Amino acid sequence: MKRVGIKDVAREAGVSASTVSYVLNRTPTETISPETQQRVMEAVNRLGYVPNLNARSLSSRRSNLIGVLIPQTEPGKELMFSNPFYGELLSSIEYTARQHGYHLLLSGTEEDQDYLGIARTRGVDGVIIVGTYPGANLNALKSLEVPIVLVDSYVKDEAFHTIGIEDKEGARMATRYLIENGHRSIAFVSGSIRENGVNIKRFQGYCSAMQEAGLAVEEDAVYSGTVDYEYGIAAAQEFLSRGRRQTAAFVTADVITMGLLRGLQQNHVRIPEDVSVVSFDDVYLSQMAYPALTTIHQDIAEKGKQAVQLVLNAARSREHHHTECILPLRLVVRDSVCKRRDEG
Amino acid sequence: MKRVGIKDVAREAGVSASTVSYVLNRTPTETISPETQQRVMEAVNRLGYVPNLNARSLSSRRSNLIGVLIPQTEPGKELMFSNPFYGELLSSIEYTARQHGYHLLLSGTEEDQDYLGIARTRGVDGVIIVGTYPGANLNALKSLEVPIVLVDSYVKDEAFHTIGIEDKEGARMATRYLIENGHRSIAFVSGSIRENGVNIKRFQGYCSAMQEAGLAVEEDAVYSGTVDYEYGIAAAQEFLSRGRRQTAAFVTADVITMGLLRGLQQNHVRIPEDVSVVSFDDVYLSQMAYPALTTIHQDIAEKGKQAVQLVLNAARSREHHHTECILPLRLVVRDSVCKRRDEG
Repeated sequence: MKRVGIKDVAREAGVSASTVSYVLNRTPTETISPETQQRVMEAVNRLGYVPNLNARSLSSRRSNLIGVLIPQTEPGKELMFSNPFYGELLSSIEYTARQHGYHLLLSGTEEDQDYLGIARTRGVDGVIIVGTYPGANLNALKSLEVPIVLVDSYVKDEAFHTIGIEDKEGARMATRYLIENGHRSIAFVSGSIRENGVNIKRFQGYCSAMQEAGLAVEEDAVYSGTVDYEYGIAAAQEFLSRGRRQTAAFVTADVITMGLLRGLQQNHVRIPEDVSVVSFDDVYLSQMAYPALTTIHQDIAEKGKQAVQLVLNAARSREHHHTECILPLRLVVRDSVCKRRDEG
Repeated sequence: MKRVGIKDVAREAGVSASTVSYVLNRTPTETISPETQQRVMEAVNRLGYVPNLNARSLSSRRSNLIGVLIPQTEPGKELMFSNPFYGELLSSIEYTARQHGYHLLLSGTEEDQDYLGIARTRGVDGVIIVGTYPGANLNALKSLEVPIVLVDSYVKDEAFHTIGIEDKEGARMATRYLIENGHRSIAFVSGSIRENGVNIKRFQGYCSAMQEAGLAVEEDAVYSGTVDYEYGIAAAQEFLSRGRRQTAAFVTADVITMGLLRGLQQNHVRIPEDVSVVSFDDVYLSQMAYPALTTIHQDIAEKGKQAVQLVLNAARSREHHHTECILPLRLVVRDSVCKRRDEG
């Protein structure tokens, strides 16, 4: 399909191309009658004319704008920052972008059609997508023809750059630490486990540590819900109603852990004396928890920084080498784990 | 100064206006030589031509983009979300904007020149500025000629809409609650106290509650630093080194309170038995604190929602009635305050 140009608009409106551009640019010194302006606007609407560049992208083919999509994968969740991980990541993305003279076009939408239109019109230089994103929509994003960086996604597609962590290995490390502390029955608590997401990898890491130690993964030791504080409280209730069968838990997100702790403590379960917990992320609030969380530390600030740098490098080189970046993890020992009491 | 139009670019480049627009729109079916393209780009750069509209703004005079500025008022602070208040507010702004088909152009910058250029080029429909913003830069923003909403600012200027809370009254409420619990010597802990900011109002509210109760505001009861967890820990150290003279504290931000609690608890000061604390904001993590925070609740989600609605209403009506919106506050009693022990 031929792209609608200014000439088409001019023809449709029965005016010159210059007149169209004057109207579009609202050039104040040119006297154009309201009737003509109206006619031009109608033609623009009828034809769907889209001027898709701005001054900076004209001069440098850059728009100095990075699109950031934080898909709201959990229906009804309005607040993208109910998990502080996103806030910390976005802070870092914004800061790095700002240092390079870039701004962010931010959206939490899951329905990307609207965003696609905006991103195309604005001519973003690249897009950073955080978390799992429905496969079909990802394909639509390719049509933007700018670098796209997937953060924490296991979608394998040469069209996208990826940045992530070794989720499976981190979960293994966490679970193994509990096993080393004498725990034999360990709960797994996470957000929803979905394809190409991080939780399925973390579940695999948990299973593999259990198996390596000759321990069974029991079905009723697995808890899966949403990544928020409320689910942590709900999981605590569920843990109690299932009979408190585990002496420890590996929880895949600090924000869930915060709720779990509260839910257990309210029911007079002591942490770590009665239940030891290893968490994941090491967001800011994990040190604020009581007890402070023993957790798998990931460098969230570095993740944001590298995501921006991936976009900028790819946009500059105009070559689309697929880049895959994996950041290291480490266990941070604080106060939420103790040796299993009845251990020999 | 006459605005540079497409005709000027065409003249400068020695081509027709249509050719300019084809180059600018990268119309793929038109064959334009690389030399001509180059000439057009050079003319565009030389003249500083800026096409400042997009399809949606053409048809409706709207860009469906809201600028959000979160000034980084504390030098060296890279992470805008080190205070979770901002994350929660931005979540709500993003969600409300999304519901209306709008996206956000986000910047944490303090040097607004760059942002101004971007905002003008992109044709934002309005700007939301969170927190105190240097006066001179605010004036520059007026040149955008779109609605500007100041959140939590006491700048009085008919050119801006404002949305805020009764900071002074909230602080008074908090301090009075401590007085009602028998406390006579009460610390005031806050971020930097600056002109037109919220902390000066909160300090006034604290002073006024103290005075109403016939209590002196003592100089060494006042602590002022930055709005973050680290400062809370530092304030705790300072409190101890000044000799633990107060039995209670009013802290103007939950995130500072979290640090203060940790700093005190690490030094075996019990909360609330030794020191009672009333906090401010009621961010999400205030319920996660140990003990859970007694705090002044403000409706952060409502603040974000109304900020967006103010922008949209003002953009629609095209009349610039100055709107001032003040949201209510209330005290939420949790576990961080107890009666002064040695009270008669």
